[in-house]
Amino acid sequence: MYDDSSARITAGLREWIGTAAPDARLPSTRSLVARYQASPVTVQKALRTLAAEGLVDSRPGVGTFVRAVRVARPHDYGWQTAALGSPPNRVPRLSSALRTVPNDVIALHSGYPDRELLPGGLVRAAFRRAARGDASVGRPPAAGLPELQAWFAAELGRHAPAGVAPPTPSDAVVFPGSQSGLSAAFRALVGAGRPLLMESPTYWGAILAAAQAGVRVVPVPSGVHGPDPKELTRAFEQTGARAFYAQPGFANPTGAHWPPALAGHVLDAVRRYGAFLIEDDWARDFGITAEPVPVAARDDGGHVVYLRSLTKSVSPAVRVAGVVARGPARERVLAEAQAESMYVSGLLQAVALDVVTQPAWRTHLRGLRHQLAARRDLLVRALGEHVPDAHLEAVPQGGLNLWVRLPDATDLDRLAGECEAAGVIVAPGDEWFPAEPTGRFLRLNYAGPGPGAFADGVRVIGRLLARQRPS
Amino acid sequence: MYDDSSARITAGLREWIGTAAPDARLPSTRSLVARYQASPVTVQKALRTLAAEGLVDSRPGVGTFVRAVRVARPHDYGWQTAALGSPPNRVPRLSSALRTVPNDVIALHSGYPDRELLPGGLVRAAFRRAARGDASVGRPPAAGLPELQAWFAAELGRHAPAGVAPPTPSDAVVFPGSQSGLSAAFRALVGAGRPLLMESPTYWGAILAAAQAGVRVVPVPSGVHGPDPKELTRAFEQTGARAFYAQPGFANPTGAHWPPALAGHVLDAVRRYGAFLIEDDWARDFGITAEPVPVAARDDGGHVVYLRSLTKSVSPAVRVAGVVARGPARERVLAEAQAESMYVSGLLQAVALDVVTQPAWRTHLRGLRHQLAARRDLLVRALGEHVPDAHLEAVPQGGLNLWVRLPDATDLDRLAGECEAAGVIVAPGDEWFPAEPTGRFLRLNYAGPGPGAFADGVRVIGRLLARQRPS
Repeated sequence: MYDDSSARITAGLREWIGTAAPDARLPSTRSLVARYQASPVTVQKALRTLAAEGLVDSRPGVGTFVRAVRVARPHDYGWQTAALGSPPNRVPRLSSALRTVPNDVIALHSGYPDRELLPGGLVRAAFRRAARGDASVGRPPAAGLPELQAWFAAELGRHAPAGVAPPTPSDAVVFPGSQSGLSAAFRALVGAGRPLLMESPTYWGAILAAAQAGVRVVPVPSGVHGPDPKELTRAFEQTGARAFYAQPGFANPTGAHWPPALAGHVLDAVRRYGAFLIEDDWARDFGITAEPVPVAARDDGGHVVYLRSLTKSVSPAVRVAGVVARGPARERVLAEAQAESMYVSGLLQAVALDVVTQPAWRTHLRGLRHQLAARRDLLVRALGEHVPDAHLEAVPQGGLNLWVRLPDATDLDRLAGECEAAGVIVAPGDEWFPAEPTGRFLRLNYAGPGPGAFADGVRVIGRLLARQRPS
Repeated sequence: MYDDSSARITAGLREWIGTAAPDARLPSTRSLVARYQASPVTVQKALRTLAAEGLVDSRPGVGTFVRAVRVARPHDYGWQTAALGSPPNRVPRLSSALRTVPNDVIALHSGYPDRELLPGGLVRAAFRRAARGDASVGRPPAAGLPELQAWFAAELGRHAPAGVAPPTPSDAVVFPGSQSGLSAAFRALVGAGRPLLMESPTYWGAILAAAQAGVRVVPVPSGVHGPDPKELTRAFEQTGARAFYAQPGFANPTGAHWPPALAGHVLDAVRRYGAFLIEDDWARDFGITAEPVPVAARDDGGHVVYLRSLTKSVSPAVRVAGVVARGPARERVLAEAQAESMYVSGLLQAVALDVVTQPAWRTHLRGLRHQLAARRDLLVRALGEHVPDAHLEAVPQGGLNLWVRLPDATDLDRLAGECEAAGVIVAPGDEWFPAEPTGRFLRLNYAGPGPGAFADGVRVIGRLLARQRPS
C-alpha cells in the first residue's frame, strides 16, 4: 500500500506518539526494524523525520523520547506562497463600511441602518413562532420556500404596468443574502473574463463580487442622476457586453433614482443589445419622498434580473434575498445558487416571510420613512452649516447615505484618519469606484446610531477639512 | 441625455401607460409632437414600438388606446441563448440525494438524517433563547462569531497530539453551510483551470462545487479502505496539483475511514508536494464504532484545510459550517467567504453554538450512535437476506450510508425507476463518480425516516434486481 517504507514507519510512530505520555521512550531501533520489517537505515530516517517535526527528542546512547512540551516554534507557511500563486483577481479588501466600531464614537461610515431602525419586536416574535414550527428542523427546496418565492414575485409583480406579465413564483430564487445573489448573477450571466458594465461609482460589494467572479468590469459614468445613457450605449457597442449591473432606486453611494424616462432608455438599450440589466433594488424599503417603480416590473422579456434583499430592512440576522429571473437565465442562476449554497435555512426564510407579511411591517416602514427623513435632513443641515467646502449635488429621496463631494485637493486618507482620531468614523468614497475616482468624496450614512451626535461629527469633519484648505 | 428621441417618447409613454386606466386614450400625435418637440414620424415610430410590445392598440382613424388586458403571449427568451453562451463548465444537475419525496414511500436515497435523529428540542430552545438576545438584530464579524470560531478551533485542537500546535480561534472562518465552505476552498486554494485531486467516488456536492469553481478535477481511485496512496503520489507527480480533497472520516459514499498509517501517508504526501489536503469532516458527529482523529489535528504547518459542518447533525435550519485554515490560505479562504456571503447570520451562529455546548448535546450524540448502529445493522441484515446479488465490501463504522455494489450487468436507471414505481426511492451510485463509474453501485441511507419499513424496501430492491438476472 505504501511506496515508501520510511513514510509507513513515520506514520505509525506518529500515531503511537499521539497517545503516548510525554517523555515516553520509543521502542528501540532493533524492535522497530523487526516490527516494520525494514532496514535500520529506514528506521533511522523515520526517526529523523519525527525529530525534525518536533515530535521526539533523540538522546544519543539513551534512546528516543516523546517530546514533553508542545513546541511554540514559529510556523513557516512560506510553501503556501508557491502553492497558492498570485490571486487570480485583485480582490479588494473588505470595505470600511463593514467595520464594527466602539459605541463611543460617532459612526457615519456604516452601510447598515442602526438597530433602532429595525423592526426588532417583529423579528423576535417571528423567530419565536418559527422555533415552534416545522421550519426549525425541516429542509426547504433548493429554490426557496414556495411561499417566500411567491412573495418576492408578487412584490415585483404589483408594479407591473398593463400589458406586462408579472413574474411567477417559480421565477424567484432565494439566496442567503444579496451578496450571494450578486455573485451568482455575475457568474451565471456573465462569467469569468467576459465584460460586465457597472455604474461608476457603485456599491463596493458588487465590485467585490465582480472581482471574485473574475468578470471584466467596464465602468459607465454615473452620478446623482443615474448613468449617462449615451455612455451606456457606447459601452454596449464597444465591448459587446451582455449585462449591465445597476441600482435604479437610490443607488449606493450616489442616492440616484432613475426617472421613468431613463429607466425606459436603459430597458431599450438592453433589449437592443440582447443584454441583461442586473437590477439591485437594495433600497426598496428605504424610500423617503419617492417610491420608484422597479425597472424589472416593466419587462417580461427576461431582460431584467432583479435582486431584492431583506437583510438591511428586516435584520442582519435574517440573511435572505430573492433573485427574480426568467427563462434560461433563471436556470443558470438557480444552478449557481445550488452549487454555492445548496439551500437557505428554511427557518430564516420563514422568519423573513413572517415579518414582511405582518400588518405591523407596513406600519414600521411608514415610521421608518419619517425617521430617515429627519435624520437625512439633520445631516444635510449640519453639512451646510459646518462644512462650507462640501458639495452635495442632490439630496437623496431615499436610501441611507449622503454622497458628498469635497475639494479636489483634499487628502481623503488623512481626513479619515484625523476624523477617526477625533472619534468620528467616515467612509472615504474611493472604495465605491471600480476605476479611478473622479473626485474626492465621502459617503455619510444618516441611518447609524446616535443621530443626536451627527451635528458634532459633521463639525469635526468641517474643522479637520478646513485645516487642509490652502492658506 | 438621450441619443434617440423616439426612445425618449417610448419611455415617457410607457410610464404614462403604467398609471393609466385600461382603454384610456393616448394623447393625439399632434399633442405628442408638441410635447416632445419631435417630428410626427418619430412619434409614430414610438407608438409602433409600444404596439409591438402589446402595451397599446392602435385603432385607425380613432386613436391609440391603452391595452385593456395583460397579454398572455408566450415569452420568447431565445435571445438569452446568445447572451448566456454555453455554460463554462458542465455543472451537474442537483443530486437525487436532495430530492424531497412524499411521506408514503420508503426513502433510502437521502443524504440527510431523518428529523427524529435531530436534537429538535435543543434546537427549538436555542432559537427561543437567541430570539430574546442581541443576535436577532446584531451583525457579527465577517469571519464569524468569535465564540463559535473558538469552538471550531477547540474541537479540532482537542485531537492534536503532543508536539503539534492546536489551531487558534482566528484560524476558523464561519460559512453558511459546508457547500459554501467547499466552494470557497476550491476557489481560494485551487482556482479555475488548475488541477484538484479528488477521491473517486466522492461526495457529489464537492463534484458540483468543483465544477462551479472551474477547477480541473483529477480523480484518485478510492474505496472502502480510502484512497490508494500510490495513485495519490502518482497524481501529484503527474499533474503538479497542489490540493487533494478527501473525506478521511466515514467518506460519503464509501464509508471509508482512514487508518492512522494512511492518514500519515497522505500528510507526508501533501508535505512533500507542497500541497493542501482539503479535509471534509462531514461525519464527525456520526461515528458508530470508531472516532477517527481528524488529519488536520496532526498538522500545524498549514497543509490541511479542515471543513466541519453542523447542518446535518444539528438541523438543516442551522446552516453553519467552519473552515479551519492557517497562514495565507486562511486569508484567501476568508476573502472568498466575504466576497461570496459577506457574513453569516449571527443568530444562526448563536443557535449552533448554544446547541453544541449544551450538556444534552453529548447525551444526544450518544443516543444517536446507538440509533445509527441499530439502523445500519437492520439494513445490512435485510440486504443479506433479500439481495443475494448485492456486495457490501465493508460495513461502515460511522456515517449515514451503505455503499452497495451490484452485478456489473445491472441497468441502474431501470432499477431505480422500477423501485420508485414500487414506492422505494434509491440513489444510483453514478452521481458520486467525478469520472466514469467503475461499477454499478447503490448508496443506501440508513438514517432516513421509517426504519420499520427498511426491510420491505430492501425486499423490493431484491425482487426487482432479480428480474435483471440473466436467465
